[in-house]
This record gives sequence, structure tokens and C-alpha cells, in this order.
Amino acid sequence: MNDTIHLLTRHRSERSFQTRSVDEELLSAIIQTGHKAPSAFNAQHISSVVVRAPETRQRIAELAGGQPWIATAPVFITLIVDFHKTAQGVARAGAEQHIHRCLEGMLAAATDAGIILSTMMTAARSLGLGVVPVSGIRANASAMIELLQLPEKTFALCGMALGYVLHPAAQKPRLPISSFRHDERYDPHAIAPAIGEHDQAMLAHWQRQQRPQPQSWSSSVGQRYSHNYRPQLRNQLRANGLDIE
Amino acid sequence: MNDTIHLLTRHRSERSFQTRSVDEELLSAIIQTGHKAPSAFNAQHISSVVVRAPETRQRIAELAGGQPWIATAPVFITLIVDFHKTAQGVARAGAEQHIHRCLEGMLAAATDAGIILSTMMTAARSLGLGVVPVSGIRANASAMIELLQLPEKTFALCGMALGYVLHPAAQKPRLPISSFRHDERYDPHAIAPAIGEHDQAMLAHWQRQQRPQPQSWSSSVGQRYSHNYRPQLRNQLRANGLDIE
Repeated sequence: MNDTIHLLTRHRSERSFQTRSVDEELLSAIIQTGHKAPSAFNAQHISSVVVRAPETRQRIAELAGGQPWIATAPVFITLIVDFHKTAQGVARAGAEQHIHRCLEGMLAAATDAGIILSTMMTAARSLGLGVVPVSGIRANASAMIELLQLPEKTFALCGMALGYVLHPAAQKPRLPISSFRHDERYDPHAIAPAIGEHDQAMLAHWQRQQRPQPQSWSSSVGQRYSHNYRPQLRNQLRANGLDIE
Repeated sequence: MNDTIHLLTRHRSERSFQTRSVDEELLSAIIQTGHKAPSAFNAQHISSVVVRAPETRQRIAELAGGQPWIATAPVFITLIVDFHKTAQGVARAGAEQHIHRCLEGMLAAATDAGIILSTMMTAARSLGLGVVPVSGIRANASAMIELLQLPEKTFALCGMALGYVLHPAAQKPRLPISSFRHDERYDPHAIAPAIGEHDQAMLAHWQRQQRPQPQSWSSSVGQRYSHNYRPQLRNQLRANGLDIE
């Protein structure tokens, strides 16, 4: 089709990196693509913190629940939901910010962060680097706030490790596209057969990867989504001035 | 740098489209890139609804608060936060889903939706199409649920209109990169000067665009973020089985 489509359809989350550093020129180009990404109402409520220092990456690797690739890859970029920045604009307009206490604000910011994360992952991959997106930093939101010295009304939503790949990862199967693409309206009958097929595909994938205990998709999503696996998140955000009324 | 970086740094939200249709082959390639995008814990809690029917696009244009380009562009893709799909996987594992009632679930899904939206916008632009991301459909969440016949535990988070551009848009200025990129830790002193500079840049931008009432960034974010501009959203989601405890 074209090189960009080719790149995008071949996304794999890499978890094995060389320690070789990433040139500042490349890093700067990557971050500029995120900076130019669209933002709802031009609110620009996302910031980034670029971490190269090994001891900080080691700490993030621990806070993210033990993700050694964050310590190995030479760069980790954290995306910050930043209602501290917008609050200053609101104050300049002579008003007081309220949106950081609303579901709408959270959804707008998380969507924009996803847009920026994806943009920068694509940019990095187009430059020959490997990336892995990371949501695990939400497991210890307060500690991330402290580590990166984040001000009130902000938190670290997600991030990405990037660097030169050591052992390339395999691409993970997806649910059949019939469960992802609906035409004109949602087709509820498409879901069950797609899940049946995907459960088999994931078992086969993990067997190929020689994982000791291969798990179907239903089994893994069942394990994770049957409970609030980050129960402390809401209170940790509230403690930094962010809430959902 | 390279074509992908060039494309990404030149993002503009297009709001003027030809009525010329988009070939199914192109559309399919675009959607496949979104389908292959990364998903936290491989949960794949996002679905899409592709709308070509003019009367449905006309209705979405109205529900999104009056966005005529949704009716003009030949295709509108809605991204659905889909905890209906994951609930079926959880049930197969013999458990009951809880994550759709948690802040963590919402943040994970909205981030993934942003990743998919960005991936598909980049794919579309690489094929010579123009795109505009749309969050306005959250203004009438219940009506979108009804229109697209979305099942329980789902809602329409965001979307994109795409098509061939008629009158190319100008790229909107961004806050200086000093307010977006921090190194090693967050620098709170970078924000105020960046806002001052950006307020001037936005006024100049709107004057160039001959907008009758040019508005600084602080003024526009002040107007929007000083109140809950989508106060009904939370109850409309709750009515469809989604909540944040």
C-alpha cells in the first residue's frame, strides 16, 4: 500500500533493547511530532517528561510493576495529564478551572494522550527504533508524581520506552476484524464467534512463544477485568487535586 | 527527516471536504492499521463503526453540536469504548466483569481509543486523505448509543471524518515546546512564559484566518474549562451500564 501503512500494520511492542543511546536529534524529531498532534479544543492538556538518567528509569521500571525494559532502553517518555498548565490559562482569563474534576476532562485528556503516544511511537518506529507503550506507571500514581516532581492537577497517565531493538518481538494476534469493524451500526452477533476464534489464536501464539502456561484471551481478560486492579488510583489522583465528581 | 515524520509534524484538522467517495480498499487499509494498534493488556476494548449513509452522518453532525463537515465528508468512523466485548470474554472465564465501573478502566480505554484514532488518522493522511478528529459526539452520548445501536457497557467516545480535502486548513499554532517537553523532571517555571507567547500566536493566527473575534488561548481555554461543559455525560454513560465508583 505504502510505507506508512506497512509500518502501522506491523506494530509490535518491543521489550528487548540494546543499551545504545538515541541521538538527541532523533529524539527531538519524535517529540515534535507529538507536540503537533491534534488536541481537543486546542486545550493542549498533555505534557511529556523525557527520562534518560539510568537511576530514574530503574525506579520507573519498579513502579510500573517490574518492567525491566524501562531500565534497559536508553529513553523513557512519560505522558502527563496536565490540568496544571490549562489552569494557568483559565486563571489568566479571570476564571477558575473546573474541568479537572469532571469525567469529560479525564476522557478528553486520556484520548489526547493516546493520540500523542501513538504519534510518537509511529515516529520512532519510522526512524528504525523499537517502542513499547506502558500503562503500568498508573499502578503507583503518587510515587510517579513525586519522582517526576509533577505539580498539582497532573498525573503520569502512560509512557513509552524506546531504543534500538535487541531481539525483535513477535506480533500478537488480534480479535478477528469482524469484532472491531462494524458498518453503519454495531452488530452484537459478531462478537461471540470472534472471541472463540481469538481464544484459540492466543493459545497457539503463546505456545509458539513457549510460554509455560499459555492463556486464552478470555482467560487473561477474565483474570484482569473481574476486579479493580488499580484500586488506589482514584485516591492517589484525588490527593493531587484531580477528581471525578 | 523522513516522509512519516514530515507527515506527522504537518497534522492539520481538515474541515472542508469534497463529496467524492473513499474506495473500500483504502478504507479497509486504514481500519486495519487501527485494528493492529497496541492495546493495554491486549484487552482490545475498542470497536469502530464505519458510517457512510448520508442521513446517519447528517444526524451525527447535529449530535456533535453542529459540525457540517461530518455530513459533507463521505465517511465518519466512530470509536466505541467497548466493555460489552470484554465482558463476554470475562464471562467465558467464569467471572463477572468489574472494570467498566472503575476509573482505571475508563483511562485505559480512552488512551487506547486515542492510539487507534491517531493510527487511523496517520494512515488516512498517508493515502492522501484529510481527517478531522471529533470529540463532540460526547455532547449527546445517549443519542449516539441509540443511533449506532450500541449495546450495554459501551459508548461512542470519539471519531473522525475523512475524505478528499476541498480547501486545505491552516496548521494551528501550539504552545512553545518548552511547555510540552520537560527533561528528567517537570519544570513548572516553563509554563507561564510559554502561555504568554502562545496567547499572542493564537491571536495572530485567528487574525490571519480573518476570524471576526480573535481569541487568545487563555481566553478560549478559560471559557471552556471553567465549567463542566458536558454535565450530562456521566449520567448518560451510567444509564448504559458504565460508571466510575
